[in-house]
Amino acid sequence: MQKIIDLNSDLGESFGQWQMGNDDAMLNIVSSANIACGFHAGSPEGILKTLKAARQNGVVVGAHVGYPDLVGFGRRNMDIAANELIADVIYQIGALKGLASAAGCKVQYVKPHGALYNTIAHDKRQAMAVIDAINAVDEKLILVALAGSPLIEWAKERGLTVVAEAFADRAYHANGTLVSRKEAGAVLHDPVQVAQRMLQLVNEGGVISIEGRFTPIEAGSICVHGDSPGAVAMAQQVRELLQQNGVSISAFAGGAL
Amino acid sequence: MQKIIDLNSDLGESFGQWQMGNDDAMLNIVSSANIACGFHAGSPEGILKTLKAARQNGVVVGAHVGYPDLVGFGRRNMDIAANELIADVIYQIGALKGLASAAGCKVQYVKPHGALYNTIAHDKRQAMAVIDAINAVDEKLILVALAGSPLIEWAKERGLTVVAEAFADRAYHANGTLVSRKEAGAVLHDPVQVAQRMLQLVNEGGVISIEGRFTPIEAGSICVHGDSPGAVAMAQQVRELLQQNGVSISAFAGGAL
Amino acid sequence: MQKIIDLNSDLGESFGQWQMGNDDAMLNIVSSANIACGFHAGSPEGILKTLKAARQNGVVVGAHVGYPDLVGFGRRNMDIAANELIADVIYQIGALKGLASAAGCKVQYVKPHGALYNTIAHDKRQAMAVIDAINAVDEKLILVALAGSPLIEWAKERGLTVVAEAFADRAYHANGTLVSRKEAGAVLHDPVQVAQRMLQLVNEGGVISIEGRFTPIEAGSICVHGDSPGAVAMAQQVRELLQQNGVSISAFAGGAL
Amino acid sequence: MQKIIDLNSDLGESFGQWQMGNDDAMLNIVSSANIACGFHAGSPEGILKTLKAARQNGVVVGAHVGYPDLVGFGRRNMDIAANELIADVIYQIGALKGLASAAGCKVQYVKPHGALYNTIAHDKRQAMAVIDAINAVDEKLILVALAGSPLIEWAKERGLTVVAEAFADRAYHANGTLVSRKEAGAVLHDPVQVAQRMLQLVNEGGVISIEGRFTPIEAGSICVHGDSPGAVAMAQQVRELLQQNGVSISAFAGGAL
Repeated sequence: MQKIIDLNSDLGESFGQWQMGNDDAMLNIVSSANIACGFHAGSPEGILKTLKAARQNGVVVGAHVGYPDLVGFGRRNMDIAANELIADVIYQIGALKGLASAAGCKVQYVKPHGALYNTIAHDKRQAMAVIDAINAVDEKLILVALAGSPLIEWAKERGLTVVAEAFADRAYHANGTLVSRKEAGAVLHDPVQVAQRMLQLVNEGGVISIEGRFTPIEAGSICVHGDSPGAVAMAQQVRELLQQNGVSISAFAGGAL
Repeated sequence: MQKIIDLNSDLGESFGQWQMGNDDAMLNIVSSANIACGFHAGSPEGILKTLKAARQNGVVVGAHVGYPDLVGFGRRNMDIAANELIADVIYQIGALKGLASAAGCKVQYVKPHGALYNTIAHDKRQAMAVIDAINAVDEKLILVALAGSPLIEWAKERGLTVVAEAFADRAYHANGTLVSRKEAGAVLHDPVQVAQRMLQLVNEGGVISIEGRFTPIEAGSICVHGDSPGAVAMAQQVRELLQQNGVSISAFAGGAL
Repeated sequence: MQKIIDLNSDLGESFGQWQMGNDDAMLNIVSSANIACGFHAGSPEGILKTLKAARQNGVVVGAHVGYPDLVGFGRRNMDIAANELIADVIYQIGALKGLASAAGCKVQYVKPHGALYNTIAHDKRQAMAVIDAINAVDEKLILVALAGSPLIEWAKERGLTVVAEAFADRAYHANGTLVSRKEAGAVLHDPVQVAQRMLQLVNEGGVISIEGRFTPIEAGSICVHGDSPGAVAMAQQVRELLQQNGVSISAFAGGAL
Repeated sequence: MQKIIDLNSDLGESFGQWQMGNDDAMLNIVSSANIACGFHAGSPEGILKTLKAARQNGVVVGAHVGYPDLVGFGRRNMDIAANELIADVIYQIGALKGLASAAGCKVQYVKPHGALYNTIAHDKRQAMAVIDAINAVDEKLILVALAGSPLIEWAKERGLTVVAEAFADRAYHANGTLVSRKEAGAVLHDPVQVAQRMLQLVNEGGVISIEGRFTPIEAGSICVHGDSPGAVAMAQQVRELLQQNGVSISAFAGGAL
């Protein structure tokens, strides 16, 4: 039987004259593109361009929603009230849906970004705000969440479809949690090792943890990066090794673009 | 036969802690609410609150799109490239559509704001960008445009439904154009006079121009203001005089909210 | 011997077309004006206007620096890196110094705003960033800090002059800390009671705590509000009662404006 | 006698996570650095870093003030009221002065950016606003203006010291004006040709115009770019050819940094 996995990456993160990442290259690698929505990154004209390119490449698009913190790139925790966060997330999803319809494609999932992503993995108050926002604007949108996080159950309880994701270049603890970036060995730099780990993830359902034991990771998508030439090459390596071993790269969100 | 006219006003213009206008009062007066979309005014949480109130009052909502100029309230001309303007307008409409669906209502029209409104009334390049944006995101959206402006034909040629609007508190020249705010007598301050002019507009299809002659004004909607207690009272006066004379206040955009 | 106390208030908080507070009324009441610097509130043209009015009223001005969070009015905690916070605070102080020199006055102190104010009262990392910023741009600037907070010692150790402040309309615990806004009785609403408490503060060096005992509060300034008609009236009451009892209202920062 | 010329370039244009230009390379080439002030580009932490690097390289710094248009990079004309523009320019200069004092250097001149630069070269209303702003905040600041533009006289009449600048990579008409970017041949791409033209400018006081005749250009500074590897190489070429021919590269603003 054919093994299938999704590769996702953060795209559309340029802002006005400022370029970030290599969207064209990444759209040849990933099956799902998390598109910035203007709060932490992305300006309308650039977002629209990326959406059109995603459509041309047959890549599924999702809303990469973030905190309203452009200068901090959405990477700083914000103690934001639930009703404000709900409205902020709906606004961003709506804006991307508008641009997507103009690009001839359809927003099929939501993946929160940066500090919001990390916070809602464990903070129930903010997590429920994001879940409520998705349900309010379009309950068919799939939520992409950190594998092993309590967010997954919270979202399912409210009726959302959830896809768990693993990070290609990150080390995991034996309990399935990510090794903190503050610890040595948290980020993996060898493209061959990274690709082989992801092949193991797909074939065996887990990776070797930093403590040295096999650790199950239940993931429907693998996140790869494109914010440097090295990152693009690593992502390409992951894709190629998977394909060479008979794994099909395919979006978790099926159906029409 | 029953005469019908629409009353519209700019709402949802608060921003974060800063309040503007009296949305609750105006939602009892108007049939159509032009809701700020976050570029010249409006923050997501406040916009959502206004949308919910509009739905409760049975008021139709439209996207009040503007230039990306919060500190200037969208009142300063900007020489913006067509592809940027197209994406900016789509983004704003999409964001409002998202919030509207969360509020249980539907964006039914687009009315550009401030400097953008004035510019596209006559500037074909920017006008076509706004028209293209509406067509790209939802061709069923109605465009509200300045009565007598070339924009009306440009939009119709591209297939849009257009509603022309008159301004209740503004003087008109004999050729049907607005008297510039820089000229004396451009803005009318007497609520009784304003209400009577609008009754004449509905009943006779025009008003007495500043030059003293009856001037035809073809308008499907009347714009009233709510940004001061005096403005609210004037809008109320317009509504009451029209109703007392058998004119029904009803949104130009029919169907479900 | 003449008793002297400073009254301070947050001013210059309008933004573009959005008005907030009653700067003209408050400049007749306070001796020190905390002027917004554009990050949480205040736009350049409005700030300049308030600075000119402060100068005309002989009111000393200080920089009311905040988090870069306009839509949240600087009231949401942000987990901001020290080097970013240092630069943000310097930028704001510098901008206000520039506008002040154009208005013919001089920024004489710094009072952090909102969530930043509350955070640095106790969070040493962010506190040191603000202290370092002040020292980097102008070590003669006085820091206004929450009475009884550890910030006071941290700033003094780094050579800053510090003025502690009390809040006119807030209840205190017996240990000198503010009663949290989440608790009943935290905010006082009776102008007469508030004024009498502030008279006691000046004459006896403390107030009756919410637990019912006299509590010493060492404060060189009293913060009053101006964001509603009731607040202005309360501030006026404080000023009048103090003056009627022989207390002089005078800025803690002496010398030329 | 030793020939002397200033080379200036736009630096500090990164914003948060978005990088732009190669400030380190350019600080080895230019004698004056136009530093973004946060309105069209530049965030406080990055600006401070560039200021410190400028100081270490002995490069004089100036305020590169722009329109409040981050997403448009200050390149879009804005019809901004004089009192708003005055305050915006003062705010930016003040902010940079604050950061510069923290970096141990001093803002010595002002060079408007992008659309503001082009507009005030000829538009007297906006030009006078910028001139008034400089005079209001620090009348010793030198204004850098387009060679041959009426702005130069307007500023001198108000008492400002003005330095005219030429653009290394731009073609000139026989009347001394820049060839519009919309015309063929407006921008020069050959580093050798560009360097030789600038040597001619310094030695002979002019360049060969696009019409083929020698055209006098009175300039005290030459603007070079650093926003691409090719641009840096061209700037380096200009510097080297000038120095090889005995021209000293030295800031027009003398004295201490």
